[in-house]
Amino acid sequence: MTTHRFVATQWHNVLGTLPPALSIASGDIVITETLDAGGVDKDGIARSHGPNPMNGPIFVEGAEPGDALKVEILRMTPIRANGWTRTSLAGNVVDPEFVRTLPPRDKVTWAIDRQGLTVALDPPVPGLEYLVLPLEPMIGCFGVAPALGQAFSTATSAENGGNMDYRGFRPGTTVWFPVAVAGALFFVGDCHATQGDGEIVGTGIETAFEVELRLTVDKAKRLTWPRGETETDIFSVGNARPLDQALQHATTDMFVWLTTEYGLSPAAASHLMGQVVCYDVGNVFDPAYTMVCRIAKKWLAGSRAS
Amino acid sequence: MTTHRFVATQWHNVLGTLPPALSIASGDIVITETLDAGGVDKDGIARSHGPNPMNGPIFVEGAEPGDALKVEILRMTPIRANGWTRTSLAGNVVDPEFVRTLPPRDKVTWAIDRQGLTVALDPPVPGLEYLVLPLEPMIGCFGVAPALGQAFSTATSAENGGNMDYRGFRPGTTVWFPVAVAGALFFVGDCHATQGDGEIVGTGIETAFEVELRLTVDKAKRLTWPRGETETDIFSVGNARPLDQALQHATTDMFVWLTTEYGLSPAAASHLMGQVVCYDVGNVFDPAYTMVCRIAKKWLAGSRAS
Amino acid sequence: MTTHRFVATQWHNVLGTLPPALSIASGDIVITETLDAGGVDKDGIARSHGPNPMNGPIFVEGAEPGDALKVEILRMTPIRANGWTRTSLAGNVVDPEFVRTLPPRDKVTWAIDRQGLTVALDPPVPGLEYLVLPLEPMIGCFGVAPALGQAFSTATSAENGGNMDYRGFRPGTTVWFPVAVAGALFFVGDCHATQGDGEIVGTGIETAFEVELRLTVDKAKRLTWPRGETETDIFSVGNARPLDQALQHATTDMFVWLTTEYGLSPAAASHLMGQVVCYDVGNVFDPAYTMVCRIAKKWLAGSRAS
Amino acid sequence: MTTHRFVATQWHNVLGTLPPALSIASGDIVITETLDAGGVDKDGIARSHGPNPMNGPIFVEGAEPGDALKVEILRMTPIRANGWTRTSLAGNVVDPEFVRTLPPRDKVTWAIDRQGLTVALDPPVPGLEYLVLPLEPMIGCFGVAPALGQAFSTATSAENGGNMDYRGFRPGTTVWFPVAVAGALFFVGDCHATQGDGEIVGTGIETAFEVELRLTVDKAKRLTWPRGETETDIFSVGNARPLDQALQHATTDMFVWLTTEYGLSPAAASHLMGQVVCYDVGNVFDPAYTMVCRIAKKWLAGSRAS
Repeated sequence: MTTHRFVATQWHNVLGTLPPALSIASGDIVITETLDAGGVDKDGIARSHGPNPMNGPIFVEGAEPGDALKVEILRMTPIRANGWTRTSLAGNVVDPEFVRTLPPRDKVTWAIDRQGLTVALDPPVPGLEYLVLPLEPMIGCFGVAPALGQAFSTATSAENGGNMDYRGFRPGTTVWFPVAVAGALFFVGDCHATQGDGEIVGTGIETAFEVELRLTVDKAKRLTWPRGETETDIFSVGNARPLDQALQHATTDMFVWLTTEYGLSPAAASHLMGQVVCYDVGNVFDPAYTMVCRIAKKWLAGSRAS
Repeated sequence: MTTHRFVATQWHNVLGTLPPALSIASGDIVITETLDAGGVDKDGIARSHGPNPMNGPIFVEGAEPGDALKVEILRMTPIRANGWTRTSLAGNVVDPEFVRTLPPRDKVTWAIDRQGLTVALDPPVPGLEYLVLPLEPMIGCFGVAPALGQAFSTATSAENGGNMDYRGFRPGTTVWFPVAVAGALFFVGDCHATQGDGEIVGTGIETAFEVELRLTVDKAKRLTWPRGETETDIFSVGNARPLDQALQHATTDMFVWLTTEYGLSPAAASHLMGQVVCYDVGNVFDPAYTMVCRIAKKWLAGSRAS
Repeated sequence: MTTHRFVATQWHNVLGTLPPALSIASGDIVITETLDAGGVDKDGIARSHGPNPMNGPIFVEGAEPGDALKVEILRMTPIRANGWTRTSLAGNVVDPEFVRTLPPRDKVTWAIDRQGLTVALDPPVPGLEYLVLPLEPMIGCFGVAPALGQAFSTATSAENGGNMDYRGFRPGTTVWFPVAVAGALFFVGDCHATQGDGEIVGTGIETAFEVELRLTVDKAKRLTWPRGETETDIFSVGNARPLDQALQHATTDMFVWLTTEYGLSPAAASHLMGQVVCYDVGNVFDPAYTMVCRIAKKWLAGSRAS
Repeated sequence: MTTHRFVATQWHNVLGTLPPALSIASGDIVITETLDAGGVDKDGIARSHGPNPMNGPIFVEGAEPGDALKVEILRMTPIRANGWTRTSLAGNVVDPEFVRTLPPRDKVTWAIDRQGLTVALDPPVPGLEYLVLPLEPMIGCFGVAPALGQAFSTATSAENGGNMDYRGFRPGTTVWFPVAVAGALFFVGDCHATQGDGEIVGTGIETAFEVELRLTVDKAKRLTWPRGETETDIFSVGNARPLDQALQHATTDMFVWLTTEYGLSPAAASHLMGQVVCYDVGNVFDPAYTMVCRIAKKWLAGSRAS
């Protein structure tokens, strides 16, 4: 197992079949510094531009269509003392006529206290002088090249991952992406110091991070959608609009997961899911919304097939 | 303050402007036994029929249009040793073509251990013999008469509440409903021994409960949607389809709440919500879906206007 | 067959189980004057208020749940020299961020030329001085009492009809509504001098009409949704949000219609519908949207079962 | 002006920035034979595979980002004596629980009478022996390379066009696509002998065509969505899910069109659109649905800015 320090020199605004910037063995660790969503680096220098410039792609040897790329989020370290957010709720998350009353979509800055592991508006905003939030790093946008030679903007998401903005993509979480091309072609960027559910102002606290990830090929997993696992839960991810369809994708995938890898009958999977699933809302700002169907591992029998 | 033991003798399948079954003073407590979603009582006797027969309506003296009816859920005690659920995911929560493969929508029974405070399939279902879930009582359907002389089936929900199937409507939670008619006309029923997010098999574990509620008139709150509060959080509820619209309603209501009762500017409310809101999914089975926009009270300044 | 001149003296803002204002035999004709959507009569006098005050309900003898109420729209005569519309596209029909740029939602007046059968902005609006539209009368809101004792605002629509704002509801069209209560309890109002698809400014040209309708009980039709027929077409109506669901309802109903009353197999119905259906958009302004699935009668075999 | 006979030798299942197969001058005519949706040519030989293999891309000299590519559909001649369709309504166009009752999604064949200009099931399907439909050729999938280096499957559609399956894309219609890359990179294929609105069985009558198109660069049109014009109408196209959002895109684009190129004020554009727009439903089968907002040219003042 090798650890690669990957220094990106160009960035991409799509996830697609592009020439690899790095090639690694399955199981290797990659440490890399990401730009913020607008393309600004840790030193405040504009190195690229929005939407969500990606480091990568990383070619993982041995990955073939039908496999899964397992991504362990080992560490996320903020490398800049500030981040930014938009100043208004997005038009699509409020009642249509209410949009007329929203404030303008400007930017504000947040100070990131890398010792105290907190964030706060800087300068303070009247009425929120008291607000100091814990640093809760998460990856906004990551994934692999999609099938068919497609390439998707990093402003949206699909079966291959992308801009899902799910708070659960944090250190300690493992994610599996469906591999559609040789080498998987992994991309990562757009990390947030923290974020509410839904990314409803169109941003988390956008800043630069050093991320440490382990990338491993899981052969022949035949995934349709991204899946994940934390210390306590397993989850399926659906990306689509409306949110109802994202929920359908995530729910269907969890049902398939339980009836294939966990050995439950369709009826048993229905009984279990009906009484224990939790839904988490990822991005509801982008063209595709993200819904996560999650089950606590304590409700699953010990014997997982895989 | 009086405690009323309210014994229902007829039940309603709509929330509307119907003759009161009980009249109480603001601040009184009501204790009442509810039927299950299909109309069966604690003794297994069919007293009414689905969907979701309601006890009520209860006329609360002094309630006028523009007020809110505050409902404190003080206690929920299961009063039957069993409950039932459907045996298949609902067609609308999976991918459309996948519906062809779902199991039939039969019924199964769960045993309710009222000492141990657990529930388990009875007889056990192969593959889930191990599954013993904690009892987590919640109210599936409650609310007040809607405006304009409207009356809505207890199979759905709207501004006045109704069949929201949100797990957060549990003992310890306080809910406010927008009063649209004199006396508010409160209805309650359809309690669940437990339920997953979304009620994706179309039921929680449906059984009979004794519920204890305090009903209080909050004057001139001018609500549009139900709101709630727990020990740790405040939340706004939106009911609509698609889920995107339910989210818009809940998000707009939270924004209005923060900018009126909590004194935040529109920009400040946007900043706060963008980085701290949580969304919870209520019912995604019924004609109207339910989405909850929730904020932890620790992120709010101490001084609430009301 | 009797012709009733029905003079309404009170109006309703819901479709529900209300005391009949008139009782007629099946097959009778009713002539009645309707108010405009805001409750103003032919003389410009406010007699009621919005939304969409209804004449009725009319009890049709012999109508029982499971029957259909057949409504033939025989004639619609405008009885006022002017109508009004809103001055802005509705927020929900444009891109969310675009709402910020819409004009205010005021009112303008249109002159109705009852000789020339045309309508024109009065006073003219700069840039549209040339615009003279043909009078194309249609019924915005009509239907019967819904099931279960429900009552729905005339601002929306459901299985029982209501505010569908479909241009096809014009003289010469026959509509069937599913009867849910004894006597059907028919309501009508909210007629338009003309309207674009979708009622995207939230109004057609709102004015007072004299309408002439024949109401007939069709026994045991077992409808779920409204259906209609013109000289050239048959159509099924779905009312829901999102528009996708309204389309699902209308498409399902047409499929059921073809496989029951027209004797087609499910495969044959699929073949026919796939290559010949037309979809028409009704209201996309209200809580429930309206989609119509329509087939030209020339593509149907001569022998209709009923 | 040159006429190019373009013989494709490879086909693409995405619209993206691919090497041009042909380069032409603005205003040139292209005549080319397309495969059917499954990749079968005029002789019944499988030359490619689904979804919707495209001829192209065609580089149009002088086209730059910000321009529009004007595509005049001059002629569509069927070049095979048969076509095929699916045998069941798609799951997503009917009520979810109703999917359980749909027939299997097999294939049937239709005979194409190129003299009589009709199509009929071959062999006949019981109950539809009488059905002979007129040939109404249309292009299912065409468009240009999208922005940002994106590439989209020909199973869906977006700002750049794609698989819109709109019946209005027929001989005599002119379409404008927003150019996002140098040369526009035009793709075309997936032509239908006829099709109902929505492509609700997932296919029109899929067959091979010879199409004749004139491709012209319109400088600096700054389009967001495809637009079109027929002898009688102008129209804007929106592609998204749910259908509500496709309608928002198309409606917004028409509003922008009227207020920029037709010189109407926002209020005047609202008045006009509110009373005269028609909506046509394109594809409701694919990941993105298509809605068309259309206005008859007779309702527009004579002086179009462009």
